[in-house]
Amino acid sequence: MEKIKLGVIPLVYPTPIVLIGADVEGRPNFTEVGDCAIMGIEPALVAISLNAAHYTTGGIDGSGTFSINIPHTGQLSITDYCGRVSGRDVDKSALFRVFRGEQTQTPLIEECPVGLECRVRETVQIEQRRIFIAEVLECYVSPSFVAETEGGRRIASLNRLDPILYALDNQYYCVGPPVGVGYQEGVEPTPKT
Amino acid sequence: MEKIKLGVIPLVYPTPIVLIGADVEGRPNFTEVGDCAIMGIEPALVAISLNAAHYTTGGIDGSGTFSINIPHTGQLSITDYCGRVSGRDVDKSALFRVFRGEQTQTPLIEECPVGLECRVRETVQIEQRRIFIAEVLECYVSPSFVAETEGGRRIASLNRLDPILYALDNQYYCVGPPVGVGYQEGVEPTPKT
Repeated sequence: MEKIKLGVIPLVYPTPIVLIGADVEGRPNFTEVGDCAIMGIEPALVAISLNAAHYTTGGIDGSGTFSINIPHTGQLSITDYCGRVSGRDVDKSALFRVFRGEQTQTPLIEECPVGLECRVRETVQIEQRRIFIAEVLECYVSPSFVAETEGGRRIASLNRLDPILYALDNQYYCVGPPVGVGYQEGVEPTPKT
Repeated sequence: MEKIKLGVIPLVYPTPIVLIGADVEGRPNFTEVGDCAIMGIEPALVAISLNAAHYTTGGIDGSGTFSINIPHTGQLSITDYCGRVSGRDVDKSALFRVFRGEQTQTPLIEECPVGLECRVRETVQIEQRRIFIAEVLECYVSPSFVAETEGGRRIASLNRLDPILYALDNQYYCVGPPVGVGYQEGVEPTPKT
């Protein structure tokens, strides 16, 4: 083993930067999160993790719903701002045009290219982290980010969506060019000798 | 609301592409996963999701441990191959140099820049998806991906690590240039009118 041990670091990279939305004390609130992932396509599952004491967490506990809003790099400043200030101190509902998920009334951000309306299925608490595993009820996409194809409507390419990446070097990054097609790149390798 | 509804899609993007390692039937096995994320820094938590019937899942159930190995774009072909074939049919331990986590003996991949040794804390089953929430016990990094700084050793930039991204347009992507610094980009915006 020719590795250097860096210690107890959850070094999964990159993380997608998203804005989590929920009503808190009767008002929409949005917080920046990098702890967010797909947990399955069928059923359509996602997971997010928040500090149990944070303002948004209470809103999700109360309603059992939240939204995932995915900004693009042109929205980096306002996204980063939402991670720096608490909804306890700042009315972040005033920063965006808000619309409501049709099934849960959870608040979503009109300006973000993609918004997911989510309903909590399981909650796991580990120390001060509260992890919400949720099913996606609907995926709302801005028209200019939908591609029309022969097979119907589908989401635009990752370069068109232009999401914000984050890594534990504390830098934000954008997405680079495509490097391959899923499940078509693998050829049987020669076993190592 | 000026959105198009695309239906029940867990459209979080991009996902980081990783290779999940576990011993299955006494032999190291590695499978490609995009359902992987940080779930917290302190404690150091990660989450992965696998189909309950898949070969690797049984290995994690048995040992309560697994590894997350993060390939770079130069390893795209072998990574994609690991997602296309099952350990039931192919001995994927023959594809890599394998080393063992010091605390759990879980198998890791020497060739990947970063490997995380993980111990399962919670398991959540939703329909056929098995979600493992785990703590990171150690982060193993290849020496050429460690940056020496005044503050000590830390991980290299995301561009140096050059991970593989994936999105639901079924394309793989690389990482583009930095676009900002975490928690330093946000300025108080003018509220919408």
